[in-house]
Amino acid sequence: MTSEHSSSTSEHRLRRLRERLGGIAYGGDYNPEQWPREVWDEDVRLMKEAGVNLVTLAVFSWSWLDEIMDLLHANGIGVDLATPDAVPPAWLIARYPDILPVLADGSTFGFGSRQHFDVSHPAYREKSLAMAERMGERYASHPALCMWHVNNEYGPVSYGPHADRAFRAWLQEKYGDLENLNQAWSTDVWGQRYSDWSQVNAPAQPRTWSNPSRRLDYHRFTSDSMLAHFKEERDILRRHTPDLPIVTNFMRFYKNNDYWAWAAEEDAAALDIYPDPREEDAHVAAALNFDLMRSLRQGQPWLVMEQATAAVSQWSVNVSKLPGKMRLGSYQAIAQGADSILFFQWRQAKGGTERFHSGMVNHAGPNTRVFREVCELGRELKGLAGITGTRSGAKVAMVFDWDCWWSLELGNSPRSDLNYPQEVLRLYRPFFDANIPLDFVDTSADLSQYSLVVLPATYLLTDQAAQNIEDYVAGGGRLVASYLSGIVDQDNTIRLGGYPGALRNVLGAWSEEMHPLAGEGEAVKLNTADGGTASADYWTEHLHTITADVLASYSSGRLAGGPAVTRNTFGSGTATYLSARVDGTYLAELLAAERTAAGIHPELDSPLGVQARRRTGNGRSYLLVLNHNDAPARVDVGQGGVDLLTGAAVNGSVELAANGVLVLQEPSTANTSSETGL
Amino acid sequence: MTSEHSSSTSEHRLRRLRERLGGIAYGGDYNPEQWPREVWDEDVRLMKEAGVNLVTLAVFSWSWLDEIMDLLHANGIGVDLATPDAVPPAWLIARYPDILPVLADGSTFGFGSRQHFDVSHPAYREKSLAMAERMGERYASHPALCMWHVNNEYGPVSYGPHADRAFRAWLQEKYGDLENLNQAWSTDVWGQRYSDWSQVNAPAQPRTWSNPSRRLDYHRFTSDSMLAHFKEERDILRRHTPDLPIVTNFMRFYKNNDYWAWAAEEDAAALDIYPDPREEDAHVAAALNFDLMRSLRQGQPWLVMEQATAAVSQWSVNVSKLPGKMRLGSYQAIAQGADSILFFQWRQAKGGTERFHSGMVNHAGPNTRVFREVCELGRELKGLAGITGTRSGAKVAMVFDWDCWWSLELGNSPRSDLNYPQEVLRLYRPFFDANIPLDFVDTSADLSQYSLVVLPATYLLTDQAAQNIEDYVAGGGRLVASYLSGIVDQDNTIRLGGYPGALRNVLGAWSEEMHPLAGEGEAVKLNTADGGTASADYWTEHLHTITADVLASYSSGRLAGGPAVTRNTFGSGTATYLSARVDGTYLAELLAAERTAAGIHPELDSPLGVQARRRTGNGRSYLLVLNHNDAPARVDVGQGGVDLLTGAAVNGSVELAANGVLVLQEPSTANTSSETGL
Amino acid sequence: MTSEHSSSTSEHRLRRLRERLGGIAYGGDYNPEQWPREVWDEDVRLMKEAGVNLVTLAVFSWSWLDEIMDLLHANGIGVDLATPDAVPPAWLIARYPDILPVLADGSTFGFGSRQHFDVSHPAYREKSLAMAERMGERYASHPALCMWHVNNEYGPVSYGPHADRAFRAWLQEKYGDLENLNQAWSTDVWGQRYSDWSQVNAPAQPRTWSNPSRRLDYHRFTSDSMLAHFKEERDILRRHTPDLPIVTNFMRFYKNNDYWAWAAEEDAAALDIYPDPREEDAHVAAALNFDLMRSLRQGQPWLVMEQATAAVSQWSVNVSKLPGKMRLGSYQAIAQGADSILFFQWRQAKGGTERFHSGMVNHAGPNTRVFREVCELGRELKGLAGITGTRSGAKVAMVFDWDCWWSLELGNSPRSDLNYPQEVLRLYRPFFDANIPLDFVDTSADLSQYSLVVLPATYLLTDQAAQNIEDYVAGGGRLVASYLSGIVDQDNTIRLGGYPGALRNVLGAWSEEMHPLAGEGEAVKLNTADGGTASADYWTEHLHTITADVLASYSSGRLAGGPAVTRNTFGSGTATYLSARVDGTYLAELLAAERTAAGIHPELDSPLGVQARRRTGNGRSYLLVLNHNDAPARVDVGQGGVDLLTGAAVNGSVELAANGVLVLQEPSTANTSSETGL
Repeated sequence: MTSEHSSSTSEHRLRRLRERLGGIAYGGDYNPEQWPREVWDEDVRLMKEAGVNLVTLAVFSWSWLDEIMDLLHANGIGVDLATPDAVPPAWLIARYPDILPVLADGSTFGFGSRQHFDVSHPAYREKSLAMAERMGERYASHPALCMWHVNNEYGPVSYGPHADRAFRAWLQEKYGDLENLNQAWSTDVWGQRYSDWSQVNAPAQPRTWSNPSRRLDYHRFTSDSMLAHFKEERDILRRHTPDLPIVTNFMRFYKNNDYWAWAAEEDAAALDIYPDPREEDAHVAAALNFDLMRSLRQGQPWLVMEQATAAVSQWSVNVSKLPGKMRLGSYQAIAQGADSILFFQWRQAKGGTERFHSGMVNHAGPNTRVFREVCELGRELKGLAGITGTRSGAKVAMVFDWDCWWSLELGNSPRSDLNYPQEVLRLYRPFFDANIPLDFVDTSADLSQYSLVVLPATYLLTDQAAQNIEDYVAGGGRLVASYLSGIVDQDNTIRLGGYPGALRNVLGAWSEEMHPLAGEGEAVKLNTADGGTASADYWTEHLHTITADVLASYSSGRLAGGPAVTRNTFGSGTATYLSARVDGTYLAELLAAERTAAGIHPELDSPLGVQARRRTGNGRSYLLVLNHNDAPARVDVGQGGVDLLTGAAVNGSVELAANGVLVLQEPSTANTSSETGL
Repeated sequence: MTSEHSSSTSEHRLRRLRERLGGIAYGGDYNPEQWPREVWDEDVRLMKEAGVNLVTLAVFSWSWLDEIMDLLHANGIGVDLATPDAVPPAWLIARYPDILPVLADGSTFGFGSRQHFDVSHPAYREKSLAMAERMGERYASHPALCMWHVNNEYGPVSYGPHADRAFRAWLQEKYGDLENLNQAWSTDVWGQRYSDWSQVNAPAQPRTWSNPSRRLDYHRFTSDSMLAHFKEERDILRRHTPDLPIVTNFMRFYKNNDYWAWAAEEDAAALDIYPDPREEDAHVAAALNFDLMRSLRQGQPWLVMEQATAAVSQWSVNVSKLPGKMRLGSYQAIAQGADSILFFQWRQAKGGTERFHSGMVNHAGPNTRVFREVCELGRELKGLAGITGTRSGAKVAMVFDWDCWWSLELGNSPRSDLNYPQEVLRLYRPFFDANIPLDFVDTSADLSQYSLVVLPATYLLTDQAAQNIEDYVAGGGRLVASYLSGIVDQDNTIRLGGYPGALRNVLGAWSEEMHPLAGEGEAVKLNTADGGTASADYWTEHLHTITADVLASYSSGRLAGGPAVTRNTFGSGTATYLSARVDGTYLAELLAAERTAAGIHPELDSPLGVQARRRTGNGRSYLLVLNHNDAPARVDVGQGGVDLLTGAAVNGSVELAANGVLVLQEPSTANTSSETGL
Repeated sequence: MTSEHSSSTSEHRLRRLRERLGGIAYGGDYNPEQWPREVWDEDVRLMKEAGVNLVTLAVFSWSWLDEIMDLLHANGIGVDLATPDAVPPAWLIARYPDILPVLADGSTFGFGSRQHFDVSHPAYREKSLAMAERMGERYASHPALCMWHVNNEYGPVSYGPHADRAFRAWLQEKYGDLENLNQAWSTDVWGQRYSDWSQVNAPAQPRTWSNPSRRLDYHRFTSDSMLAHFKEERDILRRHTPDLPIVTNFMRFYKNNDYWAWAAEEDAAALDIYPDPREEDAHVAAALNFDLMRSLRQGQPWLVMEQATAAVSQWSVNVSKLPGKMRLGSYQAIAQGADSILFFQWRQAKGGTERFHSGMVNHAGPNTRVFREVCELGRELKGLAGITGTRSGAKVAMVFDWDCWWSLELGNSPRSDLNYPQEVLRLYRPFFDANIPLDFVDTSADLSQYSLVVLPATYLLTDQAAQNIEDYVAGGGRLVASYLSGIVDQDNTIRLGGYPGALRNVLGAWSEEMHPLAGEGEAVKLNTADGGTASADYWTEHLHTITADVLASYSSGRLAGGPAVTRNTFGSGTATYLSARVDGTYLAELLAAERTAAGIHPELDSPLGVQARRRTGNGRSYLLVLNHNDAPARVDVGQGGVDLLTGAAVNGSVELAANGVLVLQEPSTANTSSETGL
């Protein structure tokens, strides 16, 4: 989590950025190279109309830069300058065709899309860094330059010879002796023992299924190898511009890269957020990702780097956001800690793959609902400058961990449809619904500051992580762990002696067998300790208590009579185990009881679908209230404050319109539950 | 549409063919090489029993030809002689393995199927043309020879090095300067700019999605490159036999080849028609394809080159045609302009892939329902010689355009399930149901002869095409255009300023955003201008009128209150825009109102499922009435005429049996609505 | 079916094995290399607790063997020693990368799974045989050695150059002259004629569909080429240990290998049986496979080589067997002729792909339900030593034939979802339900010993096979054949003149056309000769009788009035033809009538789901009664006998618990319906 580029320096850079932009960053990707020169002037005029103060340039190209940067600067618009190495150009691919990534089946991607590089290719590495060097040289002192945007949505995996070589080097660095690798990968199973390093390579398509420990290491390697490239570029740019933030853009629920490791190397977490409007609860999954971004750098404000004004083009059916939803989603990001609202992209492309991805200015031009909403939001955000730099606090921590994600979904397990984000989302939702802010943490985090810690399907736990959790509970913490936690060690090897091996002690319970429920809708009944009933589906276990008490037990099915949910007193704390996927109502009750016992209360009592978050710092406190419902909702904001969107004082019971938003600056006496930021 | 091989010469050739065959061509593919010599004599005996007058030889082989051509000639059966280059032989593939087509993922098809050639391979090109030369030399003066059949179902696409080279040459020819290609392909998007022609190649598998303009050009190239091969072979054969028709066989709803360009180079359009009997309305889609064939050469009679007597073998379940359906489908083709009824194939194969594809003589032999139906039809067709050479006319034109097909279905668009044939079929069906004949046209056609022009999802319109349509309406025409028309220009680049860019002026309306409806069965309600109601699903748009009147507006959903269907007066004409997929009942009403206003009346008033078509020429007029229903139907044929199938005079109200057919030769005073043919 | 390794010598070897083990073999795969040395001692201790007398060693590795074999021997546990060539090691693959199998699309499997070899590769062949030689030398005289286990689950197919070469050699051996191959493969269809042997190769991915006769030969080749490898290894091991059984393990419903040919070369059929607990009737399909194993070597006892104690890891959801089901399934195998109960594997792996495949000792250790059931079963089996070596007889024969399987499922046929095992299972089930034992036979078997012979979709019949069946019926036999029998000859060429060509004579009926029913749930009605009604779905035919009587005819659909089920008197016998897939109730009635007429009676009258099988020999008779229901069931066992599981005498009406088992040793006067074994 630590790095030579420490968080305090990042905060310095971000504060400078805020000061320069005068508040919330507003704008988006800008690709003037797609348009004739005369359009640029109209662009800048419309940007000013829309309140744009920052655009991202050069993500996919970088000729023409001098002129446009001058033009933007002359109009008071800052530039987030990208290095274009997400798209190695045609001439480079023609010279080094093996830069193109190789699939597991040995076939090669062709030129003509994007992210078509094997990051381990020496010429790709050399040329992309040389380009960063030249951009740094040329633009370091350009007055428009505000920030650097390295590459774009890092992600491509390759199985070609360059990846083989780099993976081998990564493994040698990790394991030292080949025997250690043989042990870690259980190569004695299926006779896969390696006798020489030269035999080790990327896990190409297997005849049936390939070694799960090897594949876990390949996930780790691909994340690390791309991060190494990022760091090399960052160091070059840092040398030229020590005071500017350097970031790359993350994606929603993105499996390939371990964003904990990545965020530690950046000045801010930056997210591309494209919820699918067809999903009724898309805002809940968005909230999870927003809290994850906020948490990746321990509460530091983060950046919305891309979102869409209306429709995107990657879904099977691309529904446009309903009027008001883009604004609502923007305020949701701000409420959860974002200091920017940037779009992909300024002007909707008229050609190319993403020609139907909406922009701030769409095909039809500025006389449209979308551009009017863009301008209105730009106007509103100008009044919210004070919120930048403020932070939120939380007393609940939930683990989100890429090692767990990777190892849980490797297949050949009790069920092949295991989905880590879904498991996290299932435990996240009750907290969201109840307006309980939470921080995500990795398994090595200092947990002592939290009153409640939740482990959703935290499948892989190292010895240290297990000890960390055990120490937390022993020291008086409250733990809630769900099934499929603590099953394997760092090598993806099963911890023996009864599941969940790493948590058996702290949970005071063990399972002798996993019992996934097969059928669609197959469920079993539960009796709860307080005389109620509940149900479980998808997952059950043949659980035994050691020292734990039973909170719920099966009343039907093959496990009838046995425990399903237990709570153990361990040291000064308690540890609750959900060994079954219990129904949502009971889950919410259980978690409510836990947080009440931990002394944690909602940010605001509100009807379902009304989200409230508080940001504080610099002596100020802001309460944002968001109505995600398509109908009006009434909430009691208590003493309230001044609604920065209207200037009106608001208190007591107030009605929010459908998709309505309140941004209340609270009186300085407000009892803030959060740490004070910068 | 024009070519050195002009239509008048083709008509001369086809007239000679008709005279020679004595009327409708009847027969099919004949593969005697699959059978011992003694079977050939039985074949010829059964062919005569069945009334066969033409067989297609040598589609997949050509030894043994001398003997069989002599035998057929001795029995009065003509030969449509094929060049066998759809199946380059094993020895050629062994010598030049890279003749085999390469898939987008770089893997190669193996030998052992058919159409296993990359048409751009020099040796394939050379050897296939040499073969055509030799066949021309040897058989030009054989008395059995009636017609040439080049290749078979052209279609294979390749992504290998020969295709790369040929594609590059095709692009150089088209664009001249590389900068023009960069512009046309919007290569500034995603940094895909080419700096040297050597960097340009076929669109192999992309990492995410590839450039849509490049893929559109690849569609055009593959069609053109195969057509170039056809033309080379045709020119060789033409030199040897200037008076014989030369064709290749087309397929139903076949996307790979632009049949407008192809048909212009042939003496007749020729169709392989395999409707799936499992589809209840297979005859409607068949009708569409028949009208398309009739239209491809401006009404000239066309050829049924292949159909099945009973079952085929390519579907997941291969249902045999019900008794009478093969006969009915044959008369449907004739009613819609066909002058031949040919089958694939004469004798059902006993081995090979298509062993379960039915023949005129099946596995069980001649003592079967199928062969009896074949013989009966052969007998009937002898009495219909006079119909050959006659034509049909239409006052309605509907656009069918391969550029639209290709560009509409490239993905990354508002919905990924866009299906061009379905869009055309949806607008075609009301005309079919109402017995209104229509011509298909491409977007450059002279529209002035039509009283109504329909554009179904005519996505790509060049500037000239757009002008052509505008001129038509300005000059007094009636236009009906559906959503997703006029969206892009010839480069597949969006026309800006509001959809549909190319038609905004003539329609007097514009859309600021597309709003596909996501859910299965999701629909919105409409109020119509005459006080009625209707509904729409699948597609809606945020439409604004400029000068147009509103015919229907939304009464539910996000667009409630806004216009859905509009009609604009433009110059002396009117233009109706269906910006939503309205329900079938309302669609039929709208189109009925349009054609009534245009003075277009049904060929015959008849119950649903009873099709009536008229063919006229040479002073004669024929009215064909076809009952596609599985129950009897009653129609009023007015003054009627002589039923050529029974010899009886028929007039007034008459009952057609289930699947029954009338072929009425009308009195010479009949008021024919069609142009007179040869 | 005959081989130099005759069945009598195999029986000698198996008798020695039984004597040595003292009865039923009990144990499983043991992979001590996956565990530290100290675990081995615990393993052996627990094995003795569980009653293990045989373990399989070295399936995937073979270092450490000396020590463990000594340890096992010292504890009285025998060893089934495997040759590890299912997993060619990393160093060998590094040296000869083209040992890896090639897929039809030309891509290659990577190292890191198992069965990653092209059996035709010379170096693989040489190295694997050298290894067998060394293992034979070293362990031939080791006192623990009881049996050899060659390779593991043979199966990989390759399309690479080594397979090409070997396939060509196999074809040259089969056809001699290339013209014979051209004839057999119908290469005149689609112009696929070969002019030189060098042009012939494995059927790589075809552009559309490839030649079905070629693909049939490729199936035969892959089975033969792997069998050749097995025989080479077997001969080496036999030289070292002439008295030990040598086997490889078969799989459930495994299509790739013709187990008739394989079993003839082994000392015993050996099965890996993994029914999916999610399938309600998994025990019926298991029964079919058990009867097949029993039949493959003409009734000789066979071996359960692998099963799971609880869950496996290869399904989408891996449900654990319910308590008692593992025991029940074990007794079912014994009831159907097995002399061993072996598991994969002893100790559940903690790493590698199969880490979630249950073992005899699971992750949680021995204090579990599973290990307790393992121990209880081990104890029980000790009392059943006398059953080993006994056999069962049957008066019903059903054909199960790999040529039929391969040729039926090649596609491009009347329906693409044809599934040979499902067709066999459909006819097998009524016999299972009625407790009628049956033998599986191939089409060349001597049928004279059977009172009833059933042909389920016996698609391919050679002339000799057809004659064999005709002779059987003519000599007084009773035949029941279902649709899709007798359609093609040995080359997969259709037999002409009406279906089913090979059986038309004996059935006294012929079909002119196949009429598959398309829709899900589409069915037609039948009237039966005795005035009843029935129905048919999936398959019907346009059938005509010649000499046959009609047992059921269609009363709806296009074939209404025509025959569906016929019975023909032929010579002294009768032949019934099911030309339609009739409903299960009518099918059961028909088959009951047939077997009653043939004088065949149930082993025991029992409620549905209660299976009864008898094994006899050595003057003893055992009746095993198995309740597959999850509820108790009552049966009348007549004079009964001593239940070897309880020692109690049992007769008359008795209640079996859910999943309960009786193993009755009958009084020596018992009227046994079976042949006496050893």
